[in-house]
Amino acid sequence: MKTGTQHLYIPGPTNVPEAVRQAMIVPMQDHRAPDFGDLTLGLFADLKKVFKTETGTVMMFPGSGTGCWEAAITNTLNPGDKVLMARHGQFSLLWADMAVKLGLDVEIVDLAWGAGAPANEFARILGNDRHGKIKAVFVTHNETATGVTSDVALVRRALDESFHDALLFVDGVSSIGSIDFRMDEWGVDLAVTGSQKGFMLPAGLGMLGVSAKAMAAAEGAKMRRAYFDFTDMARANATGYFPYTPPVPLFHGLRRALDRMLDEGMENIFARHRRLASGVRNAVAAWGMDLAAEHPSLYSDTVSAIRVPQGVDARDVIRIAYDRYNCSFGAGLGPLNGKVFRIGHLGDLNEGMCLSAISLAELCLAAAGAQIRFGSGVAAAQEIYAEPAARAVQRSTRAAARIAAE
Amino acid sequence: MKTGTQHLYIPGPTNVPEAVRQAMIVPMQDHRAPDFGDLTLGLFADLKKVFKTETGTVMMFPGSGTGCWEAAITNTLNPGDKVLMARHGQFSLLWADMAVKLGLDVEIVDLAWGAGAPANEFARILGNDRHGKIKAVFVTHNETATGVTSDVALVRRALDESFHDALLFVDGVSSIGSIDFRMDEWGVDLAVTGSQKGFMLPAGLGMLGVSAKAMAAAEGAKMRRAYFDFTDMARANATGYFPYTPPVPLFHGLRRALDRMLDEGMENIFARHRRLASGVRNAVAAWGMDLAAEHPSLYSDTVSAIRVPQGVDARDVIRIAYDRYNCSFGAGLGPLNGKVFRIGHLGDLNEGMCLSAISLAELCLAAAGAQIRFGSGVAAAQEIYAEPAARAVQRSTRAAARIAAE
Amino acid sequence: MKTGTQHLYIPGPTNVPEAVRQAMIVPMQDHRAPDFGDLTLGLFADLKKVFKTETGTVMMFPGSGTGCWEAAITNTLNPGDKVLMARHGQFSLLWADMAVKLGLDVEIVDLAWGAGAPANEFARILGNDRHGKIKAVFVTHNETATGVTSDVALVRRALDESFHDALLFVDGVSSIGSIDFRMDEWGVDLAVTGSQKGFMLPAGLGMLGVSAKAMAAAEGAKMRRAYFDFTDMARANATGYFPYTPPVPLFHGLRRALDRMLDEGMENIFARHRRLASGVRNAVAAWGMDLAAEHPSLYSDTVSAIRVPQGVDARDVIRIAYDRYNCSFGAGLGPLNGKVFRIGHLGDLNEGMCLSAISLAELCLAAAGAQIRFGSGVAAAQEIYAEPAARAVQRSTRAAARIAAE
Amino acid sequence: MKTGTQHLYIPGPTNVPEAVRQAMIVPMQDHRAPDFGDLTLGLFADLKKVFKTETGTVMMFPGSGTGCWEAAITNTLNPGDKVLMARHGQFSLLWADMAVKLGLDVEIVDLAWGAGAPANEFARILGNDRHGKIKAVFVTHNETATGVTSDVALVRRALDESFHDALLFVDGVSSIGSIDFRMDEWGVDLAVTGSQKGFMLPAGLGMLGVSAKAMAAAEGAKMRRAYFDFTDMARANATGYFPYTPPVPLFHGLRRALDRMLDEGMENIFARHRRLASGVRNAVAAWGMDLAAEHPSLYSDTVSAIRVPQGVDARDVIRIAYDRYNCSFGAGLGPLNGKVFRIGHLGDLNEGMCLSAISLAELCLAAAGAQIRFGSGVAAAQEIYAEPAARAVQRSTRAAARIAAE
Repeated sequence: MKTGTQHLYIPGPTNVPEAVRQAMIVPMQDHRAPDFGDLTLGLFADLKKVFKTETGTVMMFPGSGTGCWEAAITNTLNPGDKVLMARHGQFSLLWADMAVKLGLDVEIVDLAWGAGAPANEFARILGNDRHGKIKAVFVTHNETATGVTSDVALVRRALDESFHDALLFVDGVSSIGSIDFRMDEWGVDLAVTGSQKGFMLPAGLGMLGVSAKAMAAAEGAKMRRAYFDFTDMARANATGYFPYTPPVPLFHGLRRALDRMLDEGMENIFARHRRLASGVRNAVAAWGMDLAAEHPSLYSDTVSAIRVPQGVDARDVIRIAYDRYNCSFGAGLGPLNGKVFRIGHLGDLNEGMCLSAISLAELCLAAAGAQIRFGSGVAAAQEIYAEPAARAVQRSTRAAARIAAE
Repeated sequence: MKTGTQHLYIPGPTNVPEAVRQAMIVPMQDHRAPDFGDLTLGLFADLKKVFKTETGTVMMFPGSGTGCWEAAITNTLNPGDKVLMARHGQFSLLWADMAVKLGLDVEIVDLAWGAGAPANEFARILGNDRHGKIKAVFVTHNETATGVTSDVALVRRALDESFHDALLFVDGVSSIGSIDFRMDEWGVDLAVTGSQKGFMLPAGLGMLGVSAKAMAAAEGAKMRRAYFDFTDMARANATGYFPYTPPVPLFHGLRRALDRMLDEGMENIFARHRRLASGVRNAVAAWGMDLAAEHPSLYSDTVSAIRVPQGVDARDVIRIAYDRYNCSFGAGLGPLNGKVFRIGHLGDLNEGMCLSAISLAELCLAAAGAQIRFGSGVAAAQEIYAEPAARAVQRSTRAAARIAAE
Repeated sequence: MKTGTQHLYIPGPTNVPEAVRQAMIVPMQDHRAPDFGDLTLGLFADLKKVFKTETGTVMMFPGSGTGCWEAAITNTLNPGDKVLMARHGQFSLLWADMAVKLGLDVEIVDLAWGAGAPANEFARILGNDRHGKIKAVFVTHNETATGVTSDVALVRRALDESFHDALLFVDGVSSIGSIDFRMDEWGVDLAVTGSQKGFMLPAGLGMLGVSAKAMAAAEGAKMRRAYFDFTDMARANATGYFPYTPPVPLFHGLRRALDRMLDEGMENIFARHRRLASGVRNAVAAWGMDLAAEHPSLYSDTVSAIRVPQGVDARDVIRIAYDRYNCSFGAGLGPLNGKVFRIGHLGDLNEGMCLSAISLAELCLAAAGAQIRFGSGVAAAQEIYAEPAARAVQRSTRAAARIAAE
Repeated sequence: MKTGTQHLYIPGPTNVPEAVRQAMIVPMQDHRAPDFGDLTLGLFADLKKVFKTETGTVMMFPGSGTGCWEAAITNTLNPGDKVLMARHGQFSLLWADMAVKLGLDVEIVDLAWGAGAPANEFARILGNDRHGKIKAVFVTHNETATGVTSDVALVRRALDESFHDALLFVDGVSSIGSIDFRMDEWGVDLAVTGSQKGFMLPAGLGMLGVSAKAMAAAEGAKMRRAYFDFTDMARANATGYFPYTPPVPLFHGLRRALDRMLDEGMENIFARHRRLASGVRNAVAAWGMDLAAEHPSLYSDTVSAIRVPQGVDARDVIRIAYDRYNCSFGAGLGPLNGKVFRIGHLGDLNEGMCLSAISLAELCLAAAGAQIRFGSGVAAAQEIYAEPAARAVQRSTRAAARIAAE
């Protein structure tokens, strides 16, 4: 029998804060009540703060981030439209698959799993696209499978510098609400995320930021769509309602989650994620292991994909964690299966949780056959966590640079 | 300030049983854990019992019943396919709208709001469809807007007697799990429902029964689809997983809800709904008012749409209930707006709840200007509720016949 | 299998508001944490508002109201002290029993069950007590067994007019927080209540208001006590702590309950209880039945003890309610067993709840053999509930007067 | 703002398992309902299994363990009775204080805080008590303040070998349900515990095991008592009821907690506590620090009181943990204040939790000025936790012996 806290260190669903859990324990209510907008209109307003958009619109679709991928595509593009994407991890791969399924002409830049979005290559391709055949560029801001954060601003610059008009789609499922994301400043047209990561809720809501340009594109877009239709949703949302029954308990949870996020402050949230992630990365360095991410500049502050040593099967690490220690780590996906295990370090998290993740990882790595000195990773993380928050952020940047230099 | 129980008598979301609420208060967990199927595979098995299918498959899509409408269409039909539908209430209307949006050639039989599915007219049309142009017939089993239950078996007979091969789509959103529904026996190919009605859960899951014939059709169907794709879903479901992050707390709630439903027994659930609905209908008759449903044979056991007297605005009834008595009734939709208010009497319900619905309706009707004798409807319902369950069912049938005869 | 809302119409524990239930779902915390007083000190302050005391102290003892009876006695009296009490119901009887057990010399005025506290008789006895032998007078403000509210101010006047120095003990278990109670104005020295009635919480906390005079008496009192000792409790409470581990989730619930109470306003709470109780009483009158309370001036706004007709066993009413209708009514206690059933109408309540209580009572009375016209009581209550709150209060007073005049 | 899990490593209240939290989220119910005993009678039966008594009775008093101290005394002893106790920690001290307050003639054996119950000294005193003046011997099985577990069986032997008839009182607040306790085998007459430790519930219930001999003594005992009276309680309990309103949600939680405990098995629970505690102790040894307990044979498996190095203030450790790391450790009580901090390791616990406690303790000790090598304690604990459960128990015994030998 398993006892004690279930240790959840996957990159989503993340741990739900107690206050948010409380808020979701509600009796059912009429989603057509006259005062229903008192709840929902405030959510839309505050979601815009998290997405950092003033000119865009944020919608919530009952479903998942995957559904919002589809909503973004079917509302703004036409069958056969050419789009530009990179494939460098499981989620960029799945998004590309969906684009093909939905009838787009997908130009794919294939990269190593561990690479970031190829802004230079995108710039070259966009520069050559004299006739504006490319209607959209898709960027996976944070590739959850590899723990890689790409530089969306660079892709925007690539578009701007070639005076290219394509829409900029961004998968921010494991970034928005946790690490720096700026919809307006970066000129993101479609920003996709879900409830179960930085928003610290159960899965069940996809959120989608839509720029004014994307909204305009939706008017002429001819892809078939119904459930995910912007027009129906926007019209109902305008007064706080939905075109079909929404999952109201999640709205109550989101209210509380947004209150927490805005109370903590987005920049403080980012700094906390940076600090906690730095501890985990220091631990990995101390173990003498590598991250899947190719370069420190790509290290994700929300998830680390850790390469296990030769001869060790990462699946054993994960299985032992689950069976013996009531702990869930993320698996390696696709070609990384068996080669990495992932520690999700996003959402409602603190030092003690990261330290238990690291110390349990040490036990599981050892049990799976890795040569590891007990406590070594913990000590490396403690070096970060011993310092006051503000300085630790700097230090962690330095630590990353040091590792990079080695 | 509102005090006391919030009285929820809308036709969904319905009241969540305490045991089901408890079950959903869970920490997040890894939906890719090795034992995740221990939870989900049992759900699929038990959902089949509720749908009454042995040869079909039941899927759960994060989203809503509306999403399952779309899933049913996009997986089994082709662009331009001809389908046959009736339009006799808000939900059949919306479904027809969706079919058009998704590119089907929709032949609509328009009927009064309050009519049932026109099995005879369907039979005629199908009989004339010598070349099998019609690929599907859509039936709204229980039109939630009008409180009308249609006879699906009759439509099946119409198909069979004309040896017609069209798929039979059924919207069972407000019927499945509450009133008699027999997927296999009635030859239903696509049976759509959602979590927030008879399953007594919050909204957030669409459930879809898919016959073997429909599953075969899905292989060749050429409509664009991704999020709602059967193939991806079925492949992942086979081992208990999902192609994207599912709303796990709802699964825990569903587990407990299914336990309750199967413990009570489907036939007993139907009898209970019949008995409780009969009380409400007796009350309406005592008030001298009519239901929107055209004929007693169409009366729904899950929702009653009650026509208010001339000179009374049903919106006042609903507003007064909400503002003064902390009570939610369903509004009249579309052309019925202001003309009916609806009492949802489905899900986790008992006599005391129906009596409070009826007694509050009396107060609100009076306040909205209706001539009504206080207690008259209550007394009529009490006549039903005073009798032991078994006899009451018979009696309520008799009562319906009596009203019909008047 | 029971379905639907469990209808709880007993005079405590009362229905817990949803917001209060939410607030109690907390992880455990350290009751010795430095900021623990942030939670508890505010509770003490707000409890004083509910007790209407500025000069007294309110304590919370883990336990029940019964424990506070003991705390009140053992901290302020000495073995063999003479006290004056009336016995006119189960709870005054039990309190007298306890006083005897704890070694007091109890002078009892025995009255009919249904009578109020005998202020005139008390005045006579106190007037004759030339040597001040009587150290305390005990009043059961609201006798939960009979639905009788006594006039505490009259007893205070009896004390004052005879210049008597005895402490005034009041059992306010089913009154404080629901109906008018004024600790300072009435000169109450020991005011006992519990969490599970007007405070709308689960049982588990006894609350005790202690006047400055009673606190002074505690210093010299020689009864053995430990768990319920004022000194230990007051010393720990001063900084927000407790002498032993307190039930912290209840404190969180109490925080939310007090917020609701003070938001609604104590006078509005009293008016609401009056209005809702009036409806119940009108129903009883319409049935042609009597309350156990001897006179309308004694009618309790928190509980009605209803005498069933000759030949009917009130236990059948209660059993049928529980078994068939998922409804709990209060039983007749002691000599009233079988003769009355009680409807608790206190705490988090509204019209719809009272109407379901009344309509279910009609069903159960009929099933138990009473001659009753269905809907008659409901209609009588609806007359009250149809009027705006303010006027209804007046009317209910008039109704009581009318009944009294008959 | 604090984020993430609140780390609770105090020796009670302990972490409540999710399943137990779920179980307590119940609407209120009638504690006088005819089927109430279905819930409570099973609790009494299963509590006896945990107390390991077949011939005794277990009672539950709304309140706390402190209340059960009082219940044990006032029901079985007479004013002026002589009792024998040791004082070697805060809780034995408080119990002795209570005994004095309640009018007993307390013979106290004063020992260092860190010593165990002085079985030899007790034997000597009992042997000299020729006339049986001593009516009871009090043993604090697990002194929560010092982390000392005493040998109750030895005290029983001391009684038996001197043919002494005194009642044996045992404070098992932080032992029963977590470590080996055998009421019948050890001849314990009064066994006191509470809900918030090994039973993994919030505070609010005191549990008390009463032997047949103690129950007989209660009949003649002349101490004043009311709330805590055995007779009233036992009579009501016999049919599953209570003499006053009990905290029903806790009963539902207890039901689930007992299910978990009996599913895991008491011996497995003890082994798990041993194993987890061994890890903590290994960490302390690695830090070069001492426990307050004087000898390894006294080490408690539920709580460790850790002496901080000279020059370090343990209050700083606790404050830093709370303020910076959202972590609660137990404070040093009485003379140990500032000298020790306590890690509670009982209840619903696992390796990852202990490792986070240890790693956070390292951070806090360092911040408070202790010379400590980061990760050193963690590594020492990991040595224990790396081994399969069964062998670890042996090893931990060996480790203790090794430390003892140093």
